Amino acid sequence: MIGMAVIGYGYWGPNLVRNIVDIPHAQLRYVCDLQTERLAGIRARYPAVAVTENADDILADPAVHAVAIATPVATHYDLAMRALRAGKHVFVEKPLADSSVRAQRLVDEAAKRGLVLAVDHTFIHTGAVRMMRDLAENALGELYYYDSVRVNLGLFQQDVSVVWDLAVHDLSIMDYVLPQKPVALAATGMSHIPGGPANIAYLTLYFPGHLIAHVHVNWLAPVKIRRTLLGGSQKMIVYDDLEPSEKIKVYDKGITLSDARARRGEARRQQLIGYRSGDMTAPHLEIGEALARELREFVACIENARSPLADGNAGLRVVRLLEAASRSLSERGRIVEFDSEGVPA
Amino acid sequence: MIGMAVIGYGYWGPNLVRNIVDIPHAQLRYVCDLQTERLAGIRARYPAVAVTENADDILADPAVHAVAIATPVATHYDLAMRALRAGKHVFVEKPLADSSVRAQRLVDEAAKRGLVLAVDHTFIHTGAVRMMRDLAENALGELYYYDSVRVNLGLFQQDVSVVWDLAVHDLSIMDYVLPQKPVALAATGMSHIPGGPANIAYLTLYFPGHLIAHVHVNWLAPVKIRRTLLGGSQKMIVYDDLEPSEKIKVYDKGITLSDARARRGEARRQQLIGYRSGDMTAPHLEIGEALARELREFVACIENARSPLADGNAGLRVVRLLEAASRSLSERGRIVEFDSEGVPA
Amino acid sequence: MIGMAVIGYGYWGPNLVRNIVDIPHAQLRYVCDLQTERLAGIRARYPAVAVTENADDILADPAVHAVAIATPVATHYDLAMRALRAGKHVFVEKPLADSSVRAQRLVDEAAKRGLVLAVDHTFIHTGAVRMMRDLAENALGELYYYDSVRVNLGLFQQDVSVVWDLAVHDLSIMDYVLPQKPVALAATGMSHIPGGPANIAYLTLYFPGHLIAHVHVNWLAPVKIRRTLLGGSQKMIVYDDLEPSEKIKVYDKGITLSDARARRGEARRQQLIGYRSGDMTAPHLEIGEALARELREFVACIENARSPLADGNAGLRVVRLLEAASRSLSERGRIVEFDSEGVPA
Amino acid sequence: MIGMAVIGYGYWGPNLVRNIVDIPHAQLRYVCDLQTERLAGIRARYPAVAVTENADDILADPAVHAVAIATPVATHYDLAMRALRAGKHVFVEKPLADSSVRAQRLVDEAAKRGLVLAVDHTFIHTGAVRMMRDLAENALGELYYYDSVRVNLGLFQQDVSVVWDLAVHDLSIMDYVLPQKPVALAATGMSHIPGGPANIAYLTLYFPGHLIAHVHVNWLAPVKIRRTLLGGSQKMIVYDDLEPSEKIKVYDKGITLSDARARRGEARRQQLIGYRSGDMTAPHLEIGEALARELREFVACIENARSPLADGNAGLRVVRLLEAASRSLSERGRIVEFDSEGVPA
Repeated sequence: MIGMAVIGYGYWGPNLVRNIVDIPHAQLRYVCDLQTERLAGIRARYPAVAVTENADDILADPAVHAVAIATPVATHYDLAMRALRAGKHVFVEKPLADSSVRAQRLVDEAAKRGLVLAVDHTFIHTGAVRMMRDLAENALGELYYYDSVRVNLGLFQQDVSVVWDLAVHDLSIMDYVLPQKPVALAATGMSHIPGGPANIAYLTLYFPGHLIAHVHVNWLAPVKIRRTLLGGSQKMIVYDDLEPSEKIKVYDKGITLSDARARRGEARRQQLIGYRSGDMTAPHLEIGEALARELREFVACIENARSPLADGNAGLRVVRLLEAASRSLSERGRIVEFDSEGVPA
Repeated sequence: MIGMAVIGYGYWGPNLVRNIVDIPHAQLRYVCDLQTERLAGIRARYPAVAVTENADDILADPAVHAVAIATPVATHYDLAMRALRAGKHVFVEKPLADSSVRAQRLVDEAAKRGLVLAVDHTFIHTGAVRMMRDLAENALGELYYYDSVRVNLGLFQQDVSVVWDLAVHDLSIMDYVLPQKPVALAATGMSHIPGGPANIAYLTLYFPGHLIAHVHVNWLAPVKIRRTLLGGSQKMIVYDDLEPSEKIKVYDKGITLSDARARRGEARRQQLIGYRSGDMTAPHLEIGEALARELREFVACIENARSPLADGNAGLRVVRLLEAASRSLSERGRIVEFDSEGVPA
Repeated sequence: MIGMAVIGYGYWGPNLVRNIVDIPHAQLRYVCDLQTERLAGIRARYPAVAVTENADDILADPAVHAVAIATPVATHYDLAMRALRAGKHVFVEKPLADSSVRAQRLVDEAAKRGLVLAVDHTFIHTGAVRMMRDLAENALGELYYYDSVRVNLGLFQQDVSVVWDLAVHDLSIMDYVLPQKPVALAATGMSHIPGGPANIAYLTLYFPGHLIAHVHVNWLAPVKIRRTLLGGSQKMIVYDDLEPSEKIKVYDKGITLSDARARRGEARRQQLIGYRSGDMTAPHLEIGEALARELREFVACIENARSPLADGNAGLRVVRLLEAASRSLSERGRIVEFDSEGVPA
Repeated sequence: MIGMAVIGYGYWGPNLVRNIVDIPHAQLRYVCDLQTERLAGIRARYPAVAVTENADDILADPAVHAVAIATPVATHYDLAMRALRAGKHVFVEKPLADSSVRAQRLVDEAAKRGLVLAVDHTFIHTGAVRMMRDLAENALGELYYYDSVRVNLGLFQQDVSVVWDLAVHDLSIMDYVLPQKPVALAATGMSHIPGGPANIAYLTLYFPGHLIAHVHVNWLAPVKIRRTLLGGSQKMIVYDDLEPSEKIKVYDKGITLSDARARRGEARRQQLIGYRSGDMTAPHLEIGEALARELREFVACIENARSPLADGNAGLRVVRLLEAASRSLSERGRIVEFDSEGVPA
């Protein structure tokens, strides 16, 4: 039985609590939040769970083996590091930390102590994104592009730009779905609140070969859009997360290049590009709550001493991209290149 | 009565012919194309119109006052220049020319001779784009962003990238709708055909103040999308050109910044951003074919010696942006800045 | 303070409980269900609420002033009648009862005792339906038709047909939105489960004048549709309940009949029908949970001795229509006429 | 070479002409219309085609082997009968005639003379409807229901109701797609133009077994809808004719009935209905103009003395249903039953 605690009971914490109490091998022992009034509901609903305003109570209790942290980004590093040093396994909300240096330290600390460090990249546990990865590996052929639009009205964050709030989803999905890591990144954007962080941003990521990715995020859009195009040489996907059931559509569409092209020279290229259009299929997707699967995987990783799908390194890679995007954005799209380790050159 | 000729009878030429024959004050005298078989239909359908493979026949005929050129981009400059030098008014397909130097020369030649030079920026004559301009001027408040997605499968061009083929539409729409001209541009993209021009591209345009624009064009998308978001401080627009009737939707949505923000300091910013959500309206749009309006306007400009909505200068501005985009794209998004005349610095 | 109890804690009961505990002037005292295991959650979450398997405990307690009944339809009459006879105000799930005779008895009993009898016609408390009623009264002109499609896959009911399960929503919406009551009804349909009740049905309702209504309900559709067209001489509405925000669209569309028609005779009718097409508007709708509003209204009605929006008579009118529909359906659409009291002739 | 003539050059005639001139084995010799001004375009565009206001010119010319009739419904019978009597093969717009008696006479006359009589049920030649028939035969399992909505604003007809104008499409599609013929029909509807024919109508058709069909047609709807649901025991189809490319979607959805049901009795039925949900597929559809295929089939039928897909009998069956619908509609949905020959009892 894994003793657990949740630190942070604001927007996301209640979802962690609700799911943890349902995990057979886990026992939720504490919920912690600085705002006491938030904890009132806990007492009524989960009488067996202790509540506290002091994270130290949790870290000092040897019956707690793992903590899930759902606090503001700026506090992730400090809380996660203290938890690791107290010998706890850690599950942190995305992004893992507010800088790559700090994310790296968390990865190192967890490795040194042999503890599980998981990052809550929720989307990679959805049926849709899992299907997308499976198709990327087995059906799409050579990958050409990944293009995502994630826009809506609000919720403006105080301390981080729309990149850290929304693009983090796309970067973690790409980290999971695409077989390669980006070699360079350029970002543009704008703030429309005096003194505020960018509320609209566009990221381009270059990958080895001819794969390109692009992410459009916007807190100031009149409509909500969650749509990703993933194009390959054999098939292409439209992933619309707002569709109630057919979130993934696979198009048997593309172009065919005739062999004649090379022989007859450039001037004839046009006539030798063919367009292929076959069936579209919306595969049935695994159902069930992604967060439930993810937390059960976290517990199983603790029990079996293995690494989660989104481990500290995945979290670190995403933070590096976020950091590079912030820098490029502030320099109007200047390219940031990454070495083979994913570290900005 | 304005005597007219159409040069180029491929994809777009038949539309020019069909509309010109219906203009009361105009008389179509010639249609010219190098591929004779294309002209057969003309003889049967419009017996009064002469056909020729030789543009010189047209330029030499004093009864021809104006020519409409619908040939490949690379030939625009030569044909338009010869026509101007022969004293003809000229209507050219977009883009005006394949380089800004050449576009500038056409503008100068037309000005020197007092001839009308019009560029076929068709979209600015649609009811939807005219409504968008009207709203941008009178209803949206301060403009925040212009974001366009124009993607589909094909038609791959041989000699120009997707920027010159598809983004040209958005650049000409912006030139008409937005009150300011861009001060800088960055473009990224990729080709997926060995040796071919980019078939996917992303353009960011910076304007004075906080207005930003972005264009996503793609010849290799599984679905057709033609959607523009135009955000302002008072209202926001979604323009979906594939909607059969409600192409423009105006959202009374946005954010409100409380005055308290400045006084109470940054730390309270979050609580002081409000979200406003009112009615959505799809205004009734002017109907009728844009090209018909545009060609009638061209004839009226000749008759009244005035300048068309999309004159040579508009064409030149758009070509400068296309050229800058090509350059930036080849340098992975390096910013290109423009001076106050719109010339790359 | 109104003491309340909820009888039936299956699919809908938890929603009643959740909303009642939030009403300032009400105190939830009991929850009752025959299946004891359902009540476990209550004890943990609402320690102050007593649970029981025996409705008599509730009816005998003078501290309970009102009961909300969310049990299977066949049990509504018995429970509601016993509650009324015990002097309790009653809020019953739709439909009010399984026959009009029984519904009438409940209405009579409540009237005799001066108790509030409310039926849970939830939709009439939504922002969308309230807007629709307002528009029907003030903007649509003469009403022409009401056409609703309410289809999806499942949930097949054991004891009642799709008419009693799904069409009941449309009949209660019509009862609220339309200014007149139907004068006749015809229903067709089919069962695709051997021995089961109809799982697909079509109802036509005739109203005085030229207003006609039609309802299509289906438990065996591959997609979910919830769409109502409401046409009037001045404007027309599309109400799509699956739209996340723009549920109501008002079209300034219609036909115009020229005065000339009468003078020139029937033969010229065609040329004298004009088509009018103006703006479309999606008005901002009142937000908030309909059930919360409805339960607060119920409590306010008790406090102020007034009648709820959906009182026993509304419930009775809807049950009469359901009954008539069942009869007509079993006779392949034979018309059922109603007298001026809404009683089948 | 089949000599052909087109009688009626209003809304649809130009489409017949345009397609006939492209058929290799056919030669269009005449176009006839009472309104001379309509014929002007013919002379200019098709100089080899004679124009006339007098159908007798055509019927008297032995070089004309077949006529296509695209005149108002009321004139179909007279023109088609005269053409048959003159020994011409006949292609008639839908519906075949304005009464079943007249339709029967045309069928008899064509049979007696060994001439091809085809009715223009265009939709059955589209890729979408052909796919639907193929799926109905091979993939859907037992057919449960056919449900079509065909509504829009206008075009109000002077002399026939919306049933004859719009429902005729659905009836001809059903005649082609469904393996059985209806045994009874009920129709309801309303007119909103004083003295005019019904502009909104609902048809229910009963088939042998448990197949039911329903058609909703409306000239006074604010939006255009063309959507058919076709449900079977194995799969279900949504056919949306307004979708630009994915007109047919096949859902691997349905219910499963457990064998246990029978043994354990009715009371347990609910728990034993299962819901099945698998992939959705939009099959690639045959492209090309339906009318082109249809007219080529007509010519091939003449050449090979065989019967077209929509022959006179198909036309007659559809007219019988239209007639029955008109009668039922005028009697507020009274059922009309058909004998085994499809004749109203």
